[in-house]
Amino acid sequence: MVESFDVVLPAWVGPEVALWPAEVTAAERRMELVLDLARRNVLEKTGGPFAAAVFTCDTGRVVAVGVNRVVACNCSSAHAEVVALSLAQRRLGVYDLGGEGLPRHELVVNWRPCAMCFGALLWSGIRQLTIAGSGPELETLTGFDEGPIHPEWRRELASRGIGLSEDVCRREAVELFRWFAESGSEVYNPRREPQPSPSSRSMP
Amino acid sequence: MVESFDVVLPAWVGPEVALWPAEVTAAERRMELVLDLARRNVLEKTGGPFAAAVFTCDTGRVVAVGVNRVVACNCSSAHAEVVALSLAQRRLGVYDLGGEGLPRHELVVNWRPCAMCFGALLWSGIRQLTIAGSGPELETLTGFDEGPIHPEWRRELASRGIGLSEDVCRREAVELFRWFAESGSEVYNPRREPQPSPSSRSMP
Repeated sequence: MVESFDVVLPAWVGPEVALWPAEVTAAERRMELVLDLARRNVLEKTGGPFAAAVFTCDTGRVVAVGVNRVVACNCSSAHAEVVALSLAQRRLGVYDLGGEGLPRHELVVNWRPCAMCFGALLWSGIRQLTIAGSGPELETLTGFDEGPIHPEWRRELASRGIGLSEDVCRREAVELFRWFAESGSEVYNPRREPQPSPSSRSMP
Repeated sequence: MVESFDVVLPAWVGPEVALWPAEVTAAERRMELVLDLARRNVLEKTGGPFAAAVFTCDTGRVVAVGVNRVVACNCSSAHAEVVALSLAQRRLGVYDLGGEGLPRHELVVNWRPCAMCFGALLWSGIRQLTIAGSGPELETLTGFDEGPIHPEWRRELASRGIGLSEDVCRREAVELFRWFAESGSEVYNPRREPQPSPSSRSMP
């Protein structure tokens, strides 16, 4: 039986992030750095066009970064957000980035998190979500499936005390998706047509 | 910078699963084994009262199991479902358990997956979800927060060709949650009262 799994960043990430400033105060600059990671992840053929980073809200110190590693690590949950949040928790030795004595943490992502990652960020303890956009552009341009987003996702964030900043570097993020689509890179998780209902013991 | 994270099963799991039959054909028997893991995870103080297992649908061969490892592994996404799915993918060397040439796989869990795990199972490639129940009992009895479940979650499963079996060993699962509550064990992720809205750049 397999008793453990791990998710590893590509080798190019560490040296790249080492070149980042120690503190990144502007939201747009934080997003630009995340977009750089997403772009390079495609160029290096190490994953999909998605990246994320955890910063301290106030000082803008980078705590951890993530890129999409589904195919490389054979792990369908290794989305950029889950990777960044898990690495931040590993670095700080906590499962709750919002725990007592810790500074407030922000997750910066280059689009609205998918159905899974939306749940993952709720459990992570981050206090701020910053995204480049939330519309259908990700799915329509790249072909990736984002899953059923909760219709009240903004309200759910607010009710849990998680701030939301939208449309940060939106144009650049959409351009990245368009460039990805034109690159002919792999879409490992394409949207599928609805299938006929499977047999089920109790389907409403 | 931290460049990898891992999630590890408790040491007692391997020897326990080694005692399971090679093939488990009845759905109730699969769930009973999952409930045994959930119960022992609490008794051994290695995580919350949640467990999951990936079986081949037809033959009932166990591919991988998972238990809740959030606190032990400092990883808020290490829910039983994510652990079981990731270990199954690691074992088979695939990110898609529904890929070509593979048998159909089933995820057996001792309650409806939380908001995050619902998304995770959509991306995993499983073709069947079997749960002990889906009502408010988990939250009301244990105090754990399950997050905002998509209102059309059953329809979303069906439209993606994922079968659903509900209420398998429901009574035993509820009893387990009641026993957990009375044990005074840690609830690492309690439901919280809604907080006042945080500042936000664009809140609808």
